[in-house]
Amino acid sequence: MPATIKSVAQYAGVSIKTVSRVINNEGTVKPATLEKVQEAIEALDYKPNKAARDLAGRENFVLGYVYDNPNAYYIIDMQKGILDECRSSGYELLIHPCNAASDNIVNELVNMVSSARLAGLILSPPLSEMPQVLSALDERNICYVRILSGSTTPNSSLPSVLIDDYKAAYAITEHLIEQGHSRIAFISGDMAHQSTIERQEGYKAALKARDIPVDNQLILNGTYSFETGVKSAEKIVKMAPTPTAVFACNDEIAAGTLFGARMNGLDVPAQLAIAGFEDSPFSRQTYPTLTTAAQPTTEIAKSATSALIQCIRSRKKAGNQDAIRSRFFTPQLVIRQSTKG
Amino acid sequence: MPATIKSVAQYAGVSIKTVSRVINNEGTVKPATLEKVQEAIEALDYKPNKAARDLAGRENFVLGYVYDNPNAYYIIDMQKGILDECRSSGYELLIHPCNAASDNIVNELVNMVSSARLAGLILSPPLSEMPQVLSALDERNICYVRILSGSTTPNSSLPSVLIDDYKAAYAITEHLIEQGHSRIAFISGDMAHQSTIERQEGYKAALKARDIPVDNQLILNGTYSFETGVKSAEKIVKMAPTPTAVFACNDEIAAGTLFGARMNGLDVPAQLAIAGFEDSPFSRQTYPTLTTAAQPTTEIAKSATSALIQCIRSRKKAGNQDAIRSRFFTPQLVIRQSTKG
Repeated sequence: MPATIKSVAQYAGVSIKTVSRVINNEGTVKPATLEKVQEAIEALDYKPNKAARDLAGRENFVLGYVYDNPNAYYIIDMQKGILDECRSSGYELLIHPCNAASDNIVNELVNMVSSARLAGLILSPPLSEMPQVLSALDERNICYVRILSGSTTPNSSLPSVLIDDYKAAYAITEHLIEQGHSRIAFISGDMAHQSTIERQEGYKAALKARDIPVDNQLILNGTYSFETGVKSAEKIVKMAPTPTAVFACNDEIAAGTLFGARMNGLDVPAQLAIAGFEDSPFSRQTYPTLTTAAQPTTEIAKSATSALIQCIRSRKKAGNQDAIRSRFFTPQLVIRQSTKG
Repeated sequence: MPATIKSVAQYAGVSIKTVSRVINNEGTVKPATLEKVQEAIEALDYKPNKAARDLAGRENFVLGYVYDNPNAYYIIDMQKGILDECRSSGYELLIHPCNAASDNIVNELVNMVSSARLAGLILSPPLSEMPQVLSALDERNICYVRILSGSTTPNSSLPSVLIDDYKAAYAITEHLIEQGHSRIAFISGDMAHQSTIERQEGYKAALKARDIPVDNQLILNGTYSFETGVKSAEKIVKMAPTPTAVFACNDEIAAGTLFGARMNGLDVPAQLAIAGFEDSPFSRQTYPTLTTAAQPTTEIAKSATSALIQCIRSRKKAGNQDAIRSRFFTPQLVIRQSTKG
C-alpha cells in the first residue's frame, strides 16, 4: 500500500499540516523539522499526489532570473544571492539569459513564465529598464522585481531595488582628483545600460565641482568587457598629453586597461592610475590590486528576491494591498594600490 | 470570446498541429514558423488551457543543472553550453548549486525533480561521481547525464560525457620537462573531485616516463581556488632547493600562484614557470599569460545536454532501447608565456 500523508506525519512525529507545508514548499518550516519530514518521506517512499496538488491550486515555486549581461562574476554573484534567498524560502531558480535587443523578447519572456509555470521574475538591467517588457508583464499580472540604476523610486506597485551609481562614480572621481589628477579618462560600458550613463554623469559632476572642464575626447566608448579595457589603453597611451588616470566603468574593463597599460610599458599607478567599479574578484586579483566601488551584488540580489517573494505572497492574499517599498544601495569607494601615488 | 488554437493557426497560416507543437515546446518547429505562431499567440492573446495540457501528459521541458563547484568561469561556461542546447530544443534551465557533502543531498535532489517537474538532470563532478545520488535517481526512473573525469565508459544505460584529465595532465608535465624542468611542484584541487586525482596521476606518470622520481614533498594540497595558489606560492618559495616549475590543477590556482610569486619578487617564467588547466579567461588575462590545457567546457556542456534530451525523448517512445553512447573529450595543451624559457 502506498504511503499516505498521515503515515509520513506519524513517522516524523509532526502534524499533517506540517507535512503539507513541506510538500508545498511554503518555507515556513524550521530546518530541523524539514529534515525530519524529508527523512520520513524518503523512508516511506511517499509520493504526494501531484494532480491533487495541482487541482488545489498549489503555489508555483520556481522563480525566473532574466538577464542580458556578459559579466561572469556579476552573474555568479547575482545567482548566489537569488539562490540563497530561494533556498531559505523554498523556491527553485530558473535562469534565462537573453538578447534584450531581440524583436521577440516580449513573447519569449511571457511564454517562458507560462510554460515553466514561474511564480515571478527577477529582472536586471537592461531588461528592467525596458517599458515594453514591463507593460507586457503587467498586462498578464506577472509578479516581478526590478534591479535598476538610479536613486528615484519608479511609479509602480511592484518592488524595485535601486543602485546609486551616480553617487559612487562621483566618489571615485573625487578620489582621483584628490590624488592630484586632472586629466582623467573615462571608459564607458554598454550605453544600453543605465548604469553606464549614471556613472558617466557622476564622473562629469565631480569634475565640474572641482572646476575641471569635461573633455569629451577623454570619454571612450566600449562594452563591459576586458577587451574594451585593452583597446582603450592602446588609445590612451597615444593621447597627447596622456591622461594620468583612468576611471573604467567596471572592474573587467579596468583589468583590461591594466593589462594594456603593461603591454605598453606603463607603470601603474606611477604613470597611469586606474580605478574600476564593482569590487569583483578581478579587482583583488590583479597586480597591483584595483581601486573600485564595492557593489554588494549578492546582497542586492537577496534583497530583490525577498521583495519578489513578499510580493508573490501578498498577491495570494485577496485584498492585500501592502505597499511594497523600494530598496536602495550605494556602492562604496574601496581604495587599493592602482590609484595610490 | 477567448482565442482558440484554431484561430491562432489561421492567423499564423499554419496547421493546428504546428501550433500545438509550439505550445508544447516540442522543439521541432522551424525558427521562422515559431516566430509566426508566437506573433499570432501574442496578437490574439491566446492562452492555452494549462489544465488540459497537464492532463494530456504534456512533456515537462525544464532541465536541472546540479553542481557543487566554486569556479565562476566553469559554471558560466557550463551554463552557456547547456542553455545553447536548451534553446535550440525548446527547454528551459533550472540551476541548483548544492553542497555535495550534505547528509540530505539525495532527498534534496529527488524532491527538486518532483516539485519543479524537471524532465532530467545534468550532473557535474563531484555529484556525478556519487553512487548514492545515482542510485536514488535510478530508483525513481529520473533521466540524467553525467560529466565525469576519466576515459572508461561507466556501466549504465544512461549517457556520460568523459573528460580525459589524465592524458591532458601528462601532456602539460611533459611540456614542462621538455623546457628543462625536473623539480616540478604540483598543486592539487579538491580531492573530492576525481579530476584532481586524474591530473595528479597524469603528472606522476609523465615524470616516471622520463625517469624523474616523484617527490611527494612537491605535491601540495588545496582547493580549486585563487587563494590556494597564493598560499602554495608562499610554500614553494621557501622550499630548498626551490622548484623551477609549478603545475597547478586549474587556472584559478595558477593565477593565484602567479600573484603569490610576484609578491615574493620571483620572475615568471625565468625563475618559476607556471602552468594551469582549463583555459579559462584567467589564463589569457594574467600577465604573463598562462600555459594551460584547453578544456572545451561549453562544448562538453552542449554535448551532455544533447545526450540528455535524446535520452528523455527516447524514453517517451515505449520500447525504445536505443543505445546511448558516451562522449569523450581530451583537453589540449596550450603553450603561453608563463612556461616559455
